[in-house]
Amino acid sequence: MRPFSMQLDFRKGELAPRDRTNIRKLSDMKGMFLDAEAERLILEKENPVIYSFYERLLPEENGHLQLATTTIHPGKIGDEYFMTKGHYHKRSATSEVYLGLAGQGCLLTQTVGGDFESMVIKPGVLAYIPPYWGHRMVNTGSTPFVFFAVYPGDAGHNYGDIESTGFVKILVERDGKPLFIDNPRWKKLG
Amino acid sequence: MRPFSMQLDFRKGELAPRDRTNIRKLSDMKGMFLDAEAERLILEKENPVIYSFYERLLPEENGHLQLATTTIHPGKIGDEYFMTKGHYHKRSATSEVYLGLAGQGCLLTQTVGGDFESMVIKPGVLAYIPPYWGHRMVNTGSTPFVFFAVYPGDAGHNYGDIESTGFVKILVERDGKPLFIDNPRWKKLG
Repeated sequence: MRPFSMQLDFRKGELAPRDRTNIRKLSDMKGMFLDAEAERLILEKENPVIYSFYERLLPEENGHLQLATTTIHPGKIGDEYFMTKGHYHKRSATSEVYLGLAGQGCLLTQTVGGDFESMVIKPGVLAYIPPYWGHRMVNTGSTPFVFFAVYPGDAGHNYGDIESTGFVKILVERDGKPLFIDNPRWKKLG
Repeated sequence: MRPFSMQLDFRKGELAPRDRTNIRKLSDMKGMFLDAEAERLILEKENPVIYSFYERLLPEENGHLQLATTTIHPGKIGDEYFMTKGHYHKRSATSEVYLGLAGQGCLLTQTVGGDFESMVIKPGVLAYIPPYWGHRMVNTGSTPFVFFAVYPGDAGHNYGDIESTGFVKILVERDGKPLFIDNPRWKKLG
């Protein structure tokens, strides 16, 4: 394998050339937002894109790295901000690095035991997610929230544990500002 | 270990908070530039900073990642542009990702067998250096060249092989423009 380069658009998050564009619409995230009635009403009329991510496919091997750029659109389902599905790594003892590029959001991280930590992400904020911490990004702004991610080549994704429990906290808008509330569906795993 | 965030200044390359600031002055790179007489004359008068890099110390373990930001100052020794020492990884089967943030430069990559590849790095250019490829960055512009790097936690650095052979090609300024010339001191390893 030879070295190569790509162009990353900091404003739009697009990678060129890329191998794969992944689009996550509301219908792909059914049941992940708390307000099921708001979700149902929106899906009757439209199926909004919640986020897109761009990947260059690299070997899923130890020693390699994976890289991706993500754009979360601004918006809410009920009063809950648009967000990524969130995941642990399949090989759970692996880290991830996030770098904020445009817009403003919040990184939610947690362990399967319910330890929770959040941080505000803006352009130039670099976040380190150590092994064993699940992670989700949330767009708390009114413009696209764009960030860059790097993680080990053999990390893999475990979406299932988040699908079954959600995150410890949920980020909603109250009086025009982000507010954390407890997730009534959260439960400890293992 | 818990998640944490830092602020990365895209223009200056500074990380805050950071654990370590590394300064590489010309005296730290003796013999790495081709023009020994130009090096001697400069060192008689001053000892310029060639580049600085900022690190947050993370476990040197598989599954973790290392991250660093680097600023190469503009300048030349003789007609050879300021550059990093360059290195292979100690665990050679590991990759690295570079993201250009400010200024303009060139990434030089090579294998120990002498396979060579270069690419222009500007803000938004994302370069992937696969396992086994040594890498050096060069500032070909007139302003600080700033970039962000991520690599596996257990990659380590092997500077010695580059110190003994240099890179296959050398980047010099001719008629105001960058030009590659063969490195007369290059030799294959192994």
